[in-house]
Amino acid sequence: MLSTAKTPGDKVFAFVKRYLHGKSALTKDIYDVKRENFNKLQNHHVQFFKDLLGDRTITDLHELEKYNQEWMRCVRGYSALALKPKTTGEVSEILKYCNDSNLAVCPHGGNTGLVGGAVPVFDEIVLSAELMNDIIHLDANSGVLVCQAGCVLENLDAIVAEAGLMVPIDLASKGSCHIGGNVATNAGGLKLLRYGNLHGNVLGLEVVKADGTIIDCLSTLKKDNTGFHLKHLFIGSEGTLGFITKVALQCPTRPKSVNVAFLGLNNFDKVLKTFKEAKHDLGEILSAFEVMDTATIEFMKEKLDISSPIGKYPFYLVIETSGSREEHDAEKLNFFLQSCLEQNIVSDGIMATETHKVNAIWSIRERVPDGFRKCGHLFCYDISLPLENYYLLVEDMTKHMGNMAIRVFGLGHMGDSNLHIQIEVEEFSRDLKNYIEPYIFQRTKQLKGSISAEHGMGFLKAKYLDFARPSSNVQMMKDLKRILDPKGIMNPYKVFPW
Amino acid sequence: MLSTAKTPGDKVFAFVKRYLHGKSALTKDIYDVKRENFNKLQNHHVQFFKDLLGDRTITDLHELEKYNQEWMRCVRGYSALALKPKTTGEVSEILKYCNDSNLAVCPHGGNTGLVGGAVPVFDEIVLSAELMNDIIHLDANSGVLVCQAGCVLENLDAIVAEAGLMVPIDLASKGSCHIGGNVATNAGGLKLLRYGNLHGNVLGLEVVKADGTIIDCLSTLKKDNTGFHLKHLFIGSEGTLGFITKVALQCPTRPKSVNVAFLGLNNFDKVLKTFKEAKHDLGEILSAFEVMDTATIEFMKEKLDISSPIGKYPFYLVIETSGSREEHDAEKLNFFLQSCLEQNIVSDGIMATETHKVNAIWSIRERVPDGFRKCGHLFCYDISLPLENYYLLVEDMTKHMGNMAIRVFGLGHMGDSNLHIQIEVEEFSRDLKNYIEPYIFQRTKQLKGSISAEHGMGFLKAKYLDFARPSSNVQMMKDLKRILDPKGIMNPYKVFPW
Repeated sequence: MLSTAKTPGDKVFAFVKRYLHGKSALTKDIYDVKRENFNKLQNHHVQFFKDLLGDRTITDLHELEKYNQEWMRCVRGYSALALKPKTTGEVSEILKYCNDSNLAVCPHGGNTGLVGGAVPVFDEIVLSAELMNDIIHLDANSGVLVCQAGCVLENLDAIVAEAGLMVPIDLASKGSCHIGGNVATNAGGLKLLRYGNLHGNVLGLEVVKADGTIIDCLSTLKKDNTGFHLKHLFIGSEGTLGFITKVALQCPTRPKSVNVAFLGLNNFDKVLKTFKEAKHDLGEILSAFEVMDTATIEFMKEKLDISSPIGKYPFYLVIETSGSREEHDAEKLNFFLQSCLEQNIVSDGIMATETHKVNAIWSIRERVPDGFRKCGHLFCYDISLPLENYYLLVEDMTKHMGNMAIRVFGLGHMGDSNLHIQIEVEEFSRDLKNYIEPYIFQRTKQLKGSISAEHGMGFLKAKYLDFARPSSNVQMMKDLKRILDPKGIMNPYKVFPW
Repeated sequence: MLSTAKTPGDKVFAFVKRYLHGKSALTKDIYDVKRENFNKLQNHHVQFFKDLLGDRTITDLHELEKYNQEWMRCVRGYSALALKPKTTGEVSEILKYCNDSNLAVCPHGGNTGLVGGAVPVFDEIVLSAELMNDIIHLDANSGVLVCQAGCVLENLDAIVAEAGLMVPIDLASKGSCHIGGNVATNAGGLKLLRYGNLHGNVLGLEVVKADGTIIDCLSTLKKDNTGFHLKHLFIGSEGTLGFITKVALQCPTRPKSVNVAFLGLNNFDKVLKTFKEAKHDLGEILSAFEVMDTATIEFMKEKLDISSPIGKYPFYLVIETSGSREEHDAEKLNFFLQSCLEQNIVSDGIMATETHKVNAIWSIRERVPDGFRKCGHLFCYDISLPLENYYLLVEDMTKHMGNMAIRVFGLGHMGDSNLHIQIEVEEFSRDLKNYIEPYIFQRTKQLKGSISAEHGMGFLKAKYLDFARPSSNVQMMKDLKRILDPKGIMNPYKVFPW
């Protein structure tokens, strides 16, 4: 049985969640994590970096705050040094020095990863990519963009848009996330359904290993079968195998027509049928298929006063099409909607073709995270599940929580089998957390899902690695880590259990 | 200057090319390659395998021929043993035994790789996937297919077609290549332009390492960010890091409408412009963009009596569209063709929508390899080049060869920057080969291309690895090989220089 008594740790956690009112507690004081035997930063170390980078060596405590604190304020380190290199050469010198001096390093991109992967846990030196934001080359013919890793995703999209292209990834955090961070975490997002994942879209990478060696896999070719495909090892390794310095990206043609539909449905079986219909009728123009349950919409009404533009239904869908011919796309979407209504799969819906209306519909889905900040506490999980089991987990967790939760709600990139499940409670307690985890992960495993669909393991999920992966698989990961980073200086306490 | 005198080795080579009339010479007698210090096969080894596999242990010399000889007959080993496991467990036991006994192993799929990667160079034990051809699961909702590695590509496509899906890869050799071999060599093919590469489409793999350890990365989820993305290390590693036993594949919706156009153009600049127009006008329905030069068409006329259905032009294009609505696709393609003709980019063309006509146009492109067998000798190269340099290499090689070649011709998957360049000569000579190589690879490198776009390094290109890759990159490959296959038993003499 769950104990409702509060432990001393709960006070710390309660403090953590009050991120709007000040700094959160240090991660080391909350979690049972032990600092590994890295050297502590000394003045002569700092002097080396000052000689190398000048005023791009950050030691001011106030300025260091943004590097130490995770965006959701759930992880906080106390690094006394952040470095802002501009070139691959500088990154190489920094890492070589850190490796030789046994100093731990925390790669830092846009700090939008949500699992504490991009901030230090203790006093790791922060290595920020923020000044590595040069566009190196854009080939409009082949759609190949080469840039430094610190470029902000939205900026890249604006640049390639001028050549009639788009970046093949779209995230709610596009205004601040870095392309290098996207690659390091194998970020997914809203349009993976249409444009595929980063393993398919990243043509090349330049990476600096822990010892400062520059690994040049910066191919700009769609086909290049000369030896092992090394770049993929760094995609999704969350900065634990190397620091990504440059990215070559395949950019597809920018669609000329974008339409969105917002639909209401009476049960999840109908949601599944609608997905099948959408793939059939919309085929090549289907670019997003997002689901929200009725509890999500209630949550949005309560926290942000955003209402559904249609009546109340157990499930809602946001379906987007992107294509090259407006009239063809509208015809396909109309046919699809008509067919769904006639078959009584979809109960009601609206459709938008004008940009501001499209954006208005999308905002119902995209502003969900804004509501999070207005909660007592929200336990958030990022799960993949086979479609036939997709909503079972929400039903299961609702039952599991009983009246211990205000509400349990599910939404997500259903087109990619990706479910974001949220458990809203009055207040955080460690017992509550223990009641939810690992139960939710065990159920996910039973339902043949993944406990991290797109956010990665970071710090927060790292201790579940052995649970998520077969042992031979984890052993191979350890072998690779040992080869690429023998001293373990790259992003310690992340991905691997601490 | 090139010497035209023949060396003794030339006689051997001349014999090699007469593959239609008998066995080719042994690779060990032609190339300066030395057998590594593996154990030689003994009776008690064979007995172990007979006990394990029964009559799936092949020792009959006649039967062994097909495993020893490369499809193009350019590489030939003399293995005395081929094994045909049916299960992952059997593969694991075989590899564990081979590793313990220091016996080299050559993984063997459909033997269609063209660079000698799938046949033994000396006496390596052949490990064939041909009996590992079970379909394990097909989820029509999510489009996920899970199967054993020895399934033939065309068979898989027929099976998923029943569920309205298609396999996301299409090759001329689809009737005999295995999906495991496709994955092991990161095969590209005709429709990569539309459906992306295997790194994007393979959801999961099961692989057996050299020591028999089974690595289970057989995820069936599109998003799974729990730890390193190990499967990608095996994609394109050509059987040197492990033996792929199972594959989970993302299958897209099968198009309901396929159209093809065959166009004539007056110069390569217009070919480039047409590609840009095609991406713009055809957008999401563009599924293939193939180029052939006039020498290719002359070659086809001479060898196979296949003529262009339009007049004579310096360049020809085969453009395919695949979509979900016949009338929309036809309208887009008509608009595109009209626009190209009006702008005088394209000089002439025909279009086909009926299946038999579509196939007839495709056969002009797809039967090119059949012509190869009717040549004196053909030096074939599989190159990637940035589009602005795409055809320069053909012009350059034409000049380089002068009257030493009958003709030099270029064709390929231009939509993916992939050029197949062929040099037709009267007769093979080693001097001629030395005159062409490494010159052609040097020029490819100068033009920022890749010396192996889709065929891989296999045996034939392995010695150019150091040329194709930066040294830090090759070092990392060696580190990975050492970790995954410390004794080097997996496909020796392949990928790495011998």
